[in-house]
Amino acid sequence: MADLSLMRLIDHTLLKPYSTLEDVRRVFNEAVSFGCHSICVNPVYVSLARSLVDDAGADLKVCSVIDFPFGSMDTESRVQAIVRAAANGADEVDVVAPITLVKSSRWAEVARDLRRVVRAAHGEGLVIKVVVEDAYTTRDEKLKLYETVATSGADFIKTSTGFEDREYASSIGNMPGAQADNVRLMAEVANRYNPSLGIKAAGGIRTLRQVQELLEASGRPPDPSRFRIGTSAAASIWRDLSSGRT
Amino acid sequence: MADLSLMRLIDHTLLKPYSTLEDVRRVFNEAVSFGCHSICVNPVYVSLARSLVDDAGADLKVCSVIDFPFGSMDTESRVQAIVRAAANGADEVDVVAPITLVKSSRWAEVARDLRRVVRAAHGEGLVIKVVVEDAYTTRDEKLKLYETVATSGADFIKTSTGFEDREYASSIGNMPGAQADNVRLMAEVANRYNPSLGIKAAGGIRTLRQVQELLEASGRPPDPSRFRIGTSAAASIWRDLSSGRT
Repeated sequence: MADLSLMRLIDHTLLKPYSTLEDVRRVFNEAVSFGCHSICVNPVYVSLARSLVDDAGADLKVCSVIDFPFGSMDTESRVQAIVRAAANGADEVDVVAPITLVKSSRWAEVARDLRRVVRAAHGEGLVIKVVVEDAYTTRDEKLKLYETVATSGADFIKTSTGFEDREYASSIGNMPGAQADNVRLMAEVANRYNPSLGIKAAGGIRTLRQVQELLEASGRPPDPSRFRIGTSAAASIWRDLSSGRT
Repeated sequence: MADLSLMRLIDHTLLKPYSTLEDVRRVFNEAVSFGCHSICVNPVYVSLARSLVDDAGADLKVCSVIDFPFGSMDTESRVQAIVRAAANGADEVDVVAPITLVKSSRWAEVARDLRRVVRAAHGEGLVIKVVVEDAYTTRDEKLKLYETVATSGADFIKTSTGFEDREYASSIGNMPGAQADNVRLMAEVANRYNPSLGIKAAGGIRTLRQVQELLEASGRPPDPSRFRIGTSAAASIWRDLSSGRT
């Protein structure tokens, strides 16, 4: 018998800028069928997602991305977008780290921004994940940024947006999407600064094998309050699980 | 003698999510040297751009993108981001059209969103350009969206974000970036519904020849209140002009 409880780790995700209302309905139905943790959508679709969940009485969270995928708004606009997502019915927010400030080595400003957005999210009763976008950072920047996220009070650190500039990533020696090595580094940094920090792996995850590798790299139990997978491929992971394929 | 006044049509642009404070300074210096109309940056850099312009007493506008590059926030968040950009010192805002609503054929909501954001921008004294992202729309969608922009009260219609999903664009038969055919279609629609609508061509523009082709396609005079070019390649266009190359 397949252990379908792994599906509970999944934030079923629809973020393409050209996605439609029909796409949201399809992803909602899939997320319910497969027993996912949440549906993760763009801010414009949060109200619809909330209605679908409430009307069906579904056991499903609504997650909104914020300042996505660039992480290049000013802090105040990020806070306002978080408050709006809450008003529209979000339970969780995935906020992109202020990448431009990271790349400018403005670490005090990065820390200040993250503390503000975390406080705003928690003030609204939201779970907050900070997307560090590993494709854009060097190893030194990762170490500093992971530490800054770990000490910000955020609930999760998340690997990737899934919308990287691959040419730039490659120019600094990075692969796009969720990488087990980076998840291991996140776990190390979290163990040092904030062991309760959850880890969310996202970007390019399409198979059960990837889910298992990333979960193992995190050193976390298969508990959605400690580990999450972001993917638009919940259906194929569900098929892998159902067929017993690993 | 080269006619360098064409440089006055250029919004010199820096929008990469990994751009740094140093990049902003470089683009500012280039924009001043080359006599561009504005520097166009992400919201996080608007305050810095404003300070650079004011401290130098430069004859240069500050332009901020809004809800960029996805156009997938809810209307209220888009309005809030516009108000913030004004507070941070922007003179102009390039707001991405609500692409998800366009692709969902929610034309009444598209029109309502655009009227709201235009009213917000004008209420703050900002010039507003609406980015229709031609790479994502069919010809029928273009006709409806251009008409909706033309009747929204916006100052400009803008072709592209420069951050298209090329695979999706290609799947519906579109090329990414500024296309002369689309600029011609914009001019036709504008002539019918709002002849004073300015046109901004952006995305993949790197040569003087492209600038001239797009200006000609627009049927507009070389006046920055009527036609604009968005490019990060102001330096190469300036070299083309200075050397008399076309």
